[in-house]
Formats: sequence, structure tokens, C-alpha cells
Amino acid sequence: MKVSELGEFGLIDLLAVMISDSNINQVSPGQLVIGLGDDAAAWRSQSTIELATVDAMVQDVHFSLDMTSWQELGWKSLAINLSDIAAMGGVPRYALVALGLPEDTCVEDVSRLYEGMIDLARQTRTAIVGGNISRSPVVSVTTTVLGSSLDNRILRRSTAKPGDTIAVTGHPGSAAAGLEMLKKKSQLEAASEQYLRTAFLRPTPRLAEGQALVRGGVKTAIDISDGLLADLRHICEASQVSARVDVDKLPIHPVVAENFGEKARDLTLSGGEDYELLFTAETAVIQRVKAELGQVTDSRNITADRPCKISLFDAAGRPVKIAEYGWSHF
Amino acid sequence: MKVSELGEFGLIDLLAVMISDSNINQVSPGQLVIGLGDDAAAWRSQSTIELATVDAMVQDVHFSLDMTSWQELGWKSLAINLSDIAAMGGVPRYALVALGLPEDTCVEDVSRLYEGMIDLARQTRTAIVGGNISRSPVVSVTTTVLGSSLDNRILRRSTAKPGDTIAVTGHPGSAAAGLEMLKKKSQLEAASEQYLRTAFLRPTPRLAEGQALVRGGVKTAIDISDGLLADLRHICEASQVSARVDVDKLPIHPVVAENFGEKARDLTLSGGEDYELLFTAETAVIQRVKAELGQVTDSRNITADRPCKISLFDAAGRPVKIAEYGWSHF
Repeated sequence: MKVSELGEFGLIDLLAVMISDSNINQVSPGQLVIGLGDDAAAWRSQSTIELATVDAMVQDVHFSLDMTSWQELGWKSLAINLSDIAAMGGVPRYALVALGLPEDTCVEDVSRLYEGMIDLARQTRTAIVGGNISRSPVVSVTTTVLGSSLDNRILRRSTAKPGDTIAVTGHPGSAAAGLEMLKKKSQLEAASEQYLRTAFLRPTPRLAEGQALVRGGVKTAIDISDGLLADLRHICEASQVSARVDVDKLPIHPVVAENFGEKARDLTLSGGEDYELLFTAETAVIQRVKAELGQVTDSRNITADRPCKISLFDAAGRPVKIAEYGWSHF
Repeated sequence: MKVSELGEFGLIDLLAVMISDSNINQVSPGQLVIGLGDDAAAWRSQSTIELATVDAMVQDVHFSLDMTSWQELGWKSLAINLSDIAAMGGVPRYALVALGLPEDTCVEDVSRLYEGMIDLARQTRTAIVGGNISRSPVVSVTTTVLGSSLDNRILRRSTAKPGDTIAVTGHPGSAAAGLEMLKKKSQLEAASEQYLRTAFLRPTPRLAEGQALVRGGVKTAIDISDGLLADLRHICEASQVSARVDVDKLPIHPVVAENFGEKARDLTLSGGEDYELLFTAETAVIQRVKAELGQVTDSRNITADRPCKISLFDAAGRPVKIAEYGWSHF
């Protein structure tokens, strides 16, 4: 059935049932005053610092329905916002979802989109409490996520200091490698293909890691959406510092190294949409959180060089140049 | 200059300056921890009930750039969300704005859009604390507004009771009349044209009125976005009650009556986008808030008839039928 046949209010009713079933377990009784079905969502505040972020996924700009399932689209739409809460070291609480849909969109596909979103909402104890549906020439999902800080501490971009060690969770570059694989329809070994597809289409927001960074005393973090170097530049700009990156110590994933050869390094430095956390702190603090978090790589330093300059070096200490620097929308 | 020439980050920088200048006066010191420029906005909560709403305006669905200026688009994008906060009787605090823009959009036009939005944000003490910019085939503005309740009381849709009087602020139908005038390029007297254009393109969210309703003891309200009858139906559905409307006592604006003749009544009953408040309460409560608010019309009752039935009558008590019933997106 097309959404034009079901009608706006029919579609809202259908999604409201899916969402309400899912929300029951996310929220303690008495906390959520009004979820769906009124002019605005209403909840009792938690008396810490409140967090809010919004991000959009637009068809043929951020995703193509040829290579993305509706479930994956739903998952990723929420994941990219939860990642921003993770990068603040926060706890997600509520999400509002604004859908843009062409008239001939199948209702079943919209349900699948919500299935993917609800799957991740459940795992992260996020309640979907509001939204909006509009006709639109292409599919778009604009999600707002609201969250709270842990005990009044948050992670910022503006607090990096010269001498800080730079570290990163996981294996940046994997998402960009996944996109490349999907675009070129490359045939890889099943496990490798699964790893790369998941990295690009079902990224895991690093919420537990962000909260662990706060507890471990880290103050500075960003999530990698534009690319490792581009997001490191965002930290440098906000903190008015420089950075030095040792390109031979990058956390390149074995699957990326094996299948992308010489390109693996550039994917890791410049590929976007990994939603790993890039963070800086004094070396002792980094060592402590590394021990707790497992996969964290530090191979870089914040420096007091000309602000916003990022220098790349190889293992022999020679300067390295690379071509790309992450992604801009226009 | 096109946004594709300035680039995403250039555009963000430009808008950030406009917004920061405006935000200074909206927020008490120490309340907003982080506005623009980090992964999420962060603020200290106000320890009442928190409110959140999201709404989108999509080019050629909700507006056409032939008849809407960029300033009006910015104003209205924020106004429709503030109206949802008004319909909860709340106080707006923060807004996040997700823009979708074609590559060839002029930077000056985006600035004008923000001028319109900032104009209304200033008047309502709302701080713009975050956002997102994406490439998109058409212009879209998806705005999230966060607010707080007055002293733990909010206005709901689900609390109407049989015997309640139904009342409405202002002159519903004026916005739909304005749209009709713009579509037909009708030549009206200057003051009438100005009234109708403003009603449709620069609606005033009824924030003071919503808060006065809460203080006056009203519990039930909705804002008129879909149309008076359609939104009355939303109240009836949420409250499981029926309603009776006396069509000869409708608050038809003189400009609409003079210029739209027989159609004036249908515009008032079914025209959307007025963003007036429709509310119900015991008659004594309605009389009290009427005295305080000025332009409020009551000519209807909530009844205990079959749930969700809305009956229309004329002054002689004869049943009336009308053609349209408000708007659905698909």
C-alpha cells in the first residue's frame, strides 16, 4: 500500500503503535508525561545538563535506496544522532523523527524504516516521543535526539591542550571502505563484506565509550562523521591548537588493509561516517581509558604550532601529504 | 554567491555569527552551556516539565518561493513550532534548525531566511542552539523547538469533557484566505491584503495566550494547523468526546467576510495554518479567560454523543453540512 492511499493520519497511527510498544521499556514510569499524540512531547527533566542534536539523511545525498535497506536507513538515521550524544559523553533519552516521503512510498517500507530505528532505540534506551510526516520529492529522515549529561560533566571540542595525546576508538575508514565496496559492487569474502557493510550502514554509536571517557577524566572529544583528519581539524579550530599525526600508527582494520591496499591509509584518514570517537587528554588519562575500553589507538599529539595546522609524519619522521580532507555538503 | 561556492562550513560560520549575536539576549548567563559549534547543544535544565516538538516546511508542499519571501519562510518555520509549544501552554527556550538546500541556493537568501527566524526568536526569547545543513533537491526547513511548562501544568488534547464550552483565539480562516488571495493574485485594498498576507505568511504563535490559559485553569487545547474542524476532531479523538458547533457564531474576520462572500464560512471551519488556539473548559473558566485575552469566541460545546462526532448547526438550530474537513499530507 502507498502512503498516499493510507493517508497521513493512518500512517501516523500505524507508526504510533510500533513506537508505543517500544517505548514502554525505555522510560521509567512518571518520567514521560506525554509521548506521541499531542502538540508536543513532555517529560520531567532529570536536573543535569540537557543535550540536543539534529541530523538529516537525504535520499541520493546521504544514502541511495539501491544499496541501503529501509531497516538500515532507520538504524543509521538514529545512530548518527546518538553518536553526537556519545561525543558529548551523554546519555540519550528521547528522539523526534521528521520524515519526508514521496507519495508513492510503500507503507511497508516506512514500517521497516521504523523497525530499524526502534531496534537501535531499544538497545540504547531511547524513547521516540514525537515526529512529523511531510510529503517530499525524495525520502529524508531528520532526527532530533535529546539526552542528559553524566553528573554535570560533558565532552567538548574546545578543551584540547598542547601536549595532549590524541586517540580514537575502533577502526576509522571502515565505513568509507564499505561505501566503496557497495558502489563498485566488489565481491569480497562473506565475513569481510558483512564487516564493511555493517560499518557503513549499521554503525554503532559509541555511547558506552563516551560515558567511560567522561568518567575517566577525558574532557575533549568529537565523533568522526566527516573523516578523522577533518574532525581532528574541528577540534583544533575549536581549541586553537595544532596536531601531529603519525600515519604509520593508524588503526587500519585488517579487512580494509587486505582489500584496499595502498588506499587503506587515505580511507582511514579521510573517510567519513565511522562514528568512532576521536578524543584528546593528558597521556596518563589516555592510558587509563585505553585499558578500560579495549580498541583505542593513540598515535598522535596536540601541539602548540600555528593554530589549526595538522601535520602528518611517517614512522621515519618524514612529512607525508595526502589528497583528500573529508567531506563538505556543497 | 551560491552555497556551493561558499561551502558547508563557510555557510555554517556565517549563520553562527548571526545566531550568536541574537542569542545573547535570549538566555540568562550560565543557563546555556554550549550553543553552536560542538556535537550537541547543552544547557542546564529548569526542573519543570520539558517540551519538544518538530515540524517541517518543504518547498512546493508547504510553501512556494513565488509567493513567500525568504524572511517569511524563516519566520513561519519557527512560528509553526512555537505554536505547538503555545498549545501546551509552555515557554519556548531553544530551537534547532535542519536546512535542506539545493546547491545553487543563494547565500544571501539563506541569510534572509535566518533574519526572519531570528526576528521571531528575539520576540519570543528563543535561542537557536543547533542545526544541520544538507544538500537537498528542494528547500526544506525542519525545526525542533524545546520548551518548559509553567509550574508543572500543561495543556493537553485528551482532557476535554462533555459540557465544556469550546473557544478559539483570533480569526481562523484568515490564513487560508491569505493563501487563496496569493494563489489567485487577487487585488484587494492595501490594508486587507496586508492583513491576509500576514495571517498566512507571518502567523503569530499564541504563546502569551497559551500561558494565560494555563494560569486561568484551562486544561485542554490544540493549535489550529490542519483547520478548525480537523483540529477539533483531534481533541474529540484524544478525549473520546463529541462536539457541537454553531456555524453562525464563528469568528469570521471582516476582511474575510467582505472579500470571500459565501466561502468565508468554509474557510473559517476548514482552512489550516492559522495557529490560533482552540481550547475547551467549563463555561465559568472560559468566561474568565475571555475577559483576560480579548479576542476569544465561544460558540460550541463538547458533548457526550458518539465519540468523535462533530455536528454543525445554524442559528435556527438546523443541521449544516460542509464540504471540506482540513488537510492531510498525502
